[in-house]
Amino acid sequence: MNKRLIFITNDDGYQARGLAALIEMMRPYGDIVAVAPKDAQSGMSGALTVKTPVRLRKIKEEPGLSIYACSGTPADCVKLAMNHVFTRKPDLLVSGINHGANTAISVIYSGTLAAAAEGTLYEIPSIGFSLDDHSPAADFTACVLYGRMIIDRALQAPFDKNTFLNVNFPDLPCNEIKGFKLCRQNRGAWVDEFEKRTDPHGFDYYWMTGVFQNHEEEAEDADENVINAGYVAIVPHHLDMTNYRELERLKEIWRFEE
Amino acid sequence: MNKRLIFITNDDGYQARGLAALIEMMRPYGDIVAVAPKDAQSGMSGALTVKTPVRLRKIKEEPGLSIYACSGTPADCVKLAMNHVFTRKPDLLVSGINHGANTAISVIYSGTLAAAAEGTLYEIPSIGFSLDDHSPAADFTACVLYGRMIIDRALQAPFDKNTFLNVNFPDLPCNEIKGFKLCRQNRGAWVDEFEKRTDPHGFDYYWMTGVFQNHEEEAEDADENVINAGYVAIVPHHLDMTNYRELERLKEIWRFEE
Repeated sequence: MNKRLIFITNDDGYQARGLAALIEMMRPYGDIVAVAPKDAQSGMSGALTVKTPVRLRKIKEEPGLSIYACSGTPADCVKLAMNHVFTRKPDLLVSGINHGANTAISVIYSGTLAAAAEGTLYEIPSIGFSLDDHSPAADFTACVLYGRMIIDRALQAPFDKNTFLNVNFPDLPCNEIKGFKLCRQNRGAWVDEFEKRTDPHGFDYYWMTGVFQNHEEEAEDADENVINAGYVAIVPHHLDMTNYRELERLKEIWRFEE
Repeated sequence: MNKRLIFITNDDGYQARGLAALIEMMRPYGDIVAVAPKDAQSGMSGALTVKTPVRLRKIKEEPGLSIYACSGTPADCVKLAMNHVFTRKPDLLVSGINHGANTAISVIYSGTLAAAAEGTLYEIPSIGFSLDDHSPAADFTACVLYGRMIIDRALQAPFDKNTFLNVNFPDLPCNEIKGFKLCRQNRGAWVDEFEKRTDPHGFDYYWMTGVFQNHEEEAEDADENVINAGYVAIVPHHLDMTNYRELERLKEIWRFEE
């Protein structure tokens, strides 16, 4: 039997500590091929590079581990690797470990999760991992340990093929993490999102900034609250954005088909 | 009573014909402020500009119509405008009209829809419009006419505040469009997504390409099929990506909380 083939990617770039931590987490499970962005690509969502070509460079090759750097976005990394790196379908795709949480509405901006979404489109079981610490020097020790427990579950009892998992770790040492919670995406939004400045020539410019506003601080089953309570949050995501309840309601009240 | 305030944006840039068509569609409904990308931003999904500052320039101001160009992504345009252009909340946000359909899985890459999603986060009723014709010279005549019928419905019988609409027009003249269908997102995926070339110096590079593979060609209630059948497709979208059915199933089989 072939060894398991593991596809690793991220949005912080191939040199990020979070990628090294994910490689460490996954080494016991099989052979690893990492295809990650050349530079950090935070907040790139599912963006694709359509106006310029993309380059791919092999950074490292050793038994059981290859690392490639790609000049494109996280979604580009997955598509390019599936078309021009892998000769057989990987058994698992893991993305991250992101420096910073991807809970609540942040999921729509996340390159980490966009890469996991791409994996699902290629029918690979895919998981995005994030740690609630933005620092480049973040400590991923607990993530490696707790992440393996999730991988073990996923291998024993696979999740649905149209689903990928969004896993967020609280920023806590191993012995302070209270356990795991399967939960849903928290409601909330970002506010005060651009700071205005004036350049030395007198022209205005704006820096992205923002504060997350939690719209349901009491909900125990929502991911942002789950990590704040000291648990690892696991949300099953899918790619069908249809609001079925509203679809049925609008059919009733708009009556286009009469 | 104040006149209605309409926020217009897109991902093809402020000079696109599709933006002019959307302005034409919306002029009877109120005062228009358009804040659109300086350059085309196709395939940018919900990407945010975090590593560089963003600039904003007023292009036009006349009674009932202002147009601004923003150096950022479609999502940046909405956030920046809401923080630094509008002094009161717009009554409606419309995005597009995109040159090219945004049906099926294309919704996850679409800047047009990412802008509509942002509008929803600011609690503005938001609609993304797209025409199934990629050409810069596309004819939007039918879109203006049929689009107004959708705006009329939305004003008479508002859709849910956590929902935005994804509207796709078939590439047909007015008299060949068969009507409207409220429907769901089609299943499918893109394949053969990068073409490999070699530069004059002997190095490989890759161009994004791809072919859409429809995974349910017979489904009459799915958006890609709906436009192919000659109808205007309207899908209500929401921003909660949680797969609730799989959440319940995994709670049963993974039993983390015992």
